[in-house]
Amino acid sequence: MSMPNPAATSTRQPSPEQLLEWMQSLSNWGRWGDDDQKGTLNLLSAEKTKRALALVQEGATVSCARDVSWTAAADTPRPPQHFMLGAGDKFRPGEGPDRQVASDYFGLVFHGHTVTHVDSLAHFMWDGKIYNGVSSQLVDSREGALSHDVLAAKQGIVTRGVLVDAARLRGVEVIARGDGVGLDDIEQAERACGFKIEEGDVLLLRTGQLGHRDRTGAVDVNVEGSAGPLPELLPLFKERGIAMIGSDTGNDVQPTGYDRFCNPVHQIGIVGLGLWFLDNAWLDDLSEACAARNRWEFLITINPLRLPTVTGSPVNPIAVF
Amino acid sequence: MSMPNPAATSTRQPSPEQLLEWMQSLSNWGRWGDDDQKGTLNLLSAEKTKRALALVQEGATVSCARDVSWTAAADTPRPPQHFMLGAGDKFRPGEGPDRQVASDYFGLVFHGHTVTHVDSLAHFMWDGKIYNGVSSQLVDSREGALSHDVLAAKQGIVTRGVLVDAARLRGVEVIARGDGVGLDDIEQAERACGFKIEEGDVLLLRTGQLGHRDRTGAVDVNVEGSAGPLPELLPLFKERGIAMIGSDTGNDVQPTGYDRFCNPVHQIGIVGLGLWFLDNAWLDDLSEACAARNRWEFLITINPLRLPTVTGSPVNPIAVF
Amino acid sequence: MSMPNPAATSTRQPSPEQLLEWMQSLSNWGRWGDDDQKGTLNLLSAEKTKRALALVQEGATVSCARDVSWTAAADTPRPPQHFMLGAGDKFRPGEGPDRQVASDYFGLVFHGHTVTHVDSLAHFMWDGKIYNGVSSQLVDSREGALSHDVLAAKQGIVTRGVLVDAARLRGVEVIARGDGVGLDDIEQAERACGFKIEEGDVLLLRTGQLGHRDRTGAVDVNVEGSAGPLPELLPLFKERGIAMIGSDTGNDVQPTGYDRFCNPVHQIGIVGLGLWFLDNAWLDDLSEACAARNRWEFLITINPLRLPTVTGSPVNPIAVF
Amino acid sequence: MSMPNPAATSTRQPSPEQLLEWMQSLSNWGRWGDDDQKGTLNLLSAEKTKRALALVQEGATVSCARDVSWTAAADTPRPPQHFMLGAGDKFRPGEGPDRQVASDYFGLVFHGHTVTHVDSLAHFMWDGKIYNGVSSQLVDSREGALSHDVLAAKQGIVTRGVLVDAARLRGVEVIARGDGVGLDDIEQAERACGFKIEEGDVLLLRTGQLGHRDRTGAVDVNVEGSAGPLPELLPLFKERGIAMIGSDTGNDVQPTGYDRFCNPVHQIGIVGLGLWFLDNAWLDDLSEACAARNRWEFLITINPLRLPTVTGSPVNPIAVF
Repeated sequence: MSMPNPAATSTRQPSPEQLLEWMQSLSNWGRWGDDDQKGTLNLLSAEKTKRALALVQEGATVSCARDVSWTAAADTPRPPQHFMLGAGDKFRPGEGPDRQVASDYFGLVFHGHTVTHVDSLAHFMWDGKIYNGVSSQLVDSREGALSHDVLAAKQGIVTRGVLVDAARLRGVEVIARGDGVGLDDIEQAERACGFKIEEGDVLLLRTGQLGHRDRTGAVDVNVEGSAGPLPELLPLFKERGIAMIGSDTGNDVQPTGYDRFCNPVHQIGIVGLGLWFLDNAWLDDLSEACAARNRWEFLITINPLRLPTVTGSPVNPIAVF
Repeated sequence: MSMPNPAATSTRQPSPEQLLEWMQSLSNWGRWGDDDQKGTLNLLSAEKTKRALALVQEGATVSCARDVSWTAAADTPRPPQHFMLGAGDKFRPGEGPDRQVASDYFGLVFHGHTVTHVDSLAHFMWDGKIYNGVSSQLVDSREGALSHDVLAAKQGIVTRGVLVDAARLRGVEVIARGDGVGLDDIEQAERACGFKIEEGDVLLLRTGQLGHRDRTGAVDVNVEGSAGPLPELLPLFKERGIAMIGSDTGNDVQPTGYDRFCNPVHQIGIVGLGLWFLDNAWLDDLSEACAARNRWEFLITINPLRLPTVTGSPVNPIAVF
Repeated sequence: MSMPNPAATSTRQPSPEQLLEWMQSLSNWGRWGDDDQKGTLNLLSAEKTKRALALVQEGATVSCARDVSWTAAADTPRPPQHFMLGAGDKFRPGEGPDRQVASDYFGLVFHGHTVTHVDSLAHFMWDGKIYNGVSSQLVDSREGALSHDVLAAKQGIVTRGVLVDAARLRGVEVIARGDGVGLDDIEQAERACGFKIEEGDVLLLRTGQLGHRDRTGAVDVNVEGSAGPLPELLPLFKERGIAMIGSDTGNDVQPTGYDRFCNPVHQIGIVGLGLWFLDNAWLDDLSEACAARNRWEFLITINPLRLPTVTGSPVNPIAVF
Repeated sequence: MSMPNPAATSTRQPSPEQLLEWMQSLSNWGRWGDDDQKGTLNLLSAEKTKRALALVQEGATVSCARDVSWTAAADTPRPPQHFMLGAGDKFRPGEGPDRQVASDYFGLVFHGHTVTHVDSLAHFMWDGKIYNGVSSQLVDSREGALSHDVLAAKQGIVTRGVLVDAARLRGVEVIARGDGVGLDDIEQAERACGFKIEEGDVLLLRTGQLGHRDRTGAVDVNVEGSAGPLPELLPLFKERGIAMIGSDTGNDVQPTGYDRFCNPVHQIGIVGLGLWFLDNAWLDDLSEACAARNRWEFLITINPLRLPTVTGSPVNPIAVF
């Protein structure tokens, strides 16, 4: 990477009409058949996987997930739960070993702003439809996602990842809440980092927000806002054919500046493009790993749990250099 | 694979004294330092990862996880839970799109006999100690595993997997509950399948039990028993230096035939060797994939969730051919 | 009680048109104001409470709740959960007492066929409305019951209870699944047992089903059916002005014999009359207590938990003689 | 009530030796048999219930429970959970009514400082024993309270309640965190309010803390402390033979000023006396009801849920005037 430009910022805000137009013009509905539930995961391929494997030089792995926290916080109003069913603290010398086994229950609301997770295509709807024109009635409040659940990704995602380290490229610790990552950042990254975003990539955008949050304390995202990818990136996502977008944010700038679009990147991305999202990725370790090697592309493996009728899954994406 | 021997069975049952001796003689305590919590994951290496990546010829992925089931069954007395927080079924034409987002809570007891998961080294204790001599008091019934939780595997497992398809090698649909996979099966697999189990491998043993269970119905494992790896394999696990043992069972033959050892392979494996376990893997698809290619080694990626203080994690292991 | 008539059965089945007519003609909408959420709890009064208190002769209490079971069963597909946060089994002699405290998490789906609970008026809707004409949209899949939650009963129910012990009156151990309690049973009880059902009463109907279930094993209610109050009782509920109907069933005969009415007594009772329900009451002990005294009226106290936005509450109704 | 004395405060702090002596001298172990699990609930009686019923003049009911809150707060680090299984918001005109039913899951850790609940005698242990000398091993981290669970109270508590409104008697809005209710407050209440605490009573102490908390915001009790009953009351509890102590606090002054006693009133009360506790009662409405009538005794009904192996229960105590 050479010569970051601290002045690069992206403020372009497409009109609401433009967003509605993109919902149509960028649509992938029907592209992979009427029954398709995989969306942009169709852009993965065995050939792409093989090329991604060939990127590995050392065999070093880097986790792109945050530790789950069991603690309520301003951005974690429904904290994950963990209960032990038996543990090791009951042992007494002389007793038999038969009860020396520990077991756990854990549960969580993974959507939101703190747990590293993927969204399935059932996470957002638009005008009564989910991706590919299926009725949103199939995402049932009792039965769960009867279509477009996370099982569409059950065979795993083993492909190339590329990191656009927008904070580092701008020379800042963190991109401010309310600001977003846009085309300028992408262009600068491609110029400076020696890669071009291509079909089947997992595109990771780093704002530094999640690390900054861990260092300075949780905030209410509905009040303080969030960085994230800007809607102006949507055409690029389509043109380049990325399989998944991820960042160290909830993946939509807040506030959005729109009335009807509470999460424009998710709404157009998921419903229109069938794009898969990786929210709240932990990218600070990855950033260090990339910078140390000045290599910004790598193998990435993302293995969503096989959770039928669930609209996503917590994950631990592993990058390999 | 050539000429399976249907007659191969393993009935050898080491004496309780032998098991207690193995707890000592096969021990890895102190081998990787007094503070080690990774156990046999220390046998992974960047070099091993690179060699495993080089096995891939096609880029085809195969999931080795079972779909989580939300339904109570004889072997699932505490069924996983799934609740929707909002869904898509409330949409009405003409309304704004702002509430068209679905979210989920899910929770589960993953240990047991139906969820594909890894055990961390805090899952079993012996005589008041967990692996590497730490007090079992640290696996606390309130706070969880304050040592040896699943975070020891947070950087992911990207290594070679090998499949010993014991059911196929014996020419049976399923190895009977109460029977186990033993040295004979391993030897036959190494002879017939062109691989030798080596340091850092994920060793997968297929009994056909989980597929048979799905076809014929759930049973109470405490009553009907289980197939699984036999204790006689423990010295081989140590000698060959496997990083993880997995099978399509709970990974201990039931009933065990021992008084003090309710789960001898887990107890000696986890506490003594620091061996990681993959329980209830789904190996029927993998078996087909291996047989179709007559290749029984492959890249495998297992990415446990980053769950602090938890004694394991549900996973979706992905094999790549 | 004198001379039960074993031949008494109720088979009358009102036409669907009759049910629809009752939804209108028995309606209490508007009766207690446009904002009313209490429905038939308005028929309670301080005066009624005082008269109920005056029934007590001995001060003996009898619980009308079933023990919650943590075990999955054919009629409990989503079993309640109980996890300990700390416990007493970790104590070791000589240690300080500071950790000798136990705590619990419990959670449950209380609606259904096994947990003793009350239904709030948000539990059923009809044609897009809940009781008193409020939009069913207010029972929100994300936020819960924003109207008509169980807080409407937060001041407790302290009134007269009367037991119609239909099984005993018919001289049978249990009223068969598919059969119901009807007007004949009520008339016989009033003749034989020395009470008349009056305004503000909690009317309890005993079929023996729950005790029989505990003795003979759980069944799938959707397959095996259920006893319960018959729809023909609805006009009587209105005329007499009962505050709550309860029984040792889920309070609707199954199968219902109707297409549109999956639970006609609940649907017309809750939505039309604003009637409160006590489902799965444990009435076998109460039956013994009544028979021993030949007194079938008593003080009853039902204290729903203060659970905002919840459509009911588990309870432990206490009868006092 | 006449002439409160604002200067009354209680600062007497018994020595640790005195507390240890009370653990012995106030003990009720063996008093009601070796198998007793009811402790001070043995002091209830049919006769007492009848006398309490006779106190009722109007039939007016007052809830002594706080609304459960689903929101995390400084004193609610593990917030209760509520999920809907189906709801009313999915209805569309013209559709059949069959899915118009709402159901809920709720779950909670009720011990702590915000949920109105009773403690069973399994909640605290001392030196490896629970009340009446049973091994604390029976409060099992996996199986729950195999002895002394809340089922000991399953027949309900229908008895006299008396309110010592310490805040009102002192003429303050709230008794400061760290200060406690003591013998002075009791003596003043008995002088001013026309009652004498007697056997079988539920003794309620009001500090105003919970109402103040709701008006001014939650605090971390471990940091900011808590009001509550003082240990000096323990001999009085024994002498008078109260069945239950309750207050609008967690029922122990924090900080306690002791090393070994983290909750001296609970520890000696529960383990030694077998005393039942009502924590976090909502007493502000009761206070108004008592003051309006200048009557400080009333019927109270407390009906714990029938939760086997659980160390308490959320409740909604109902006072009747």
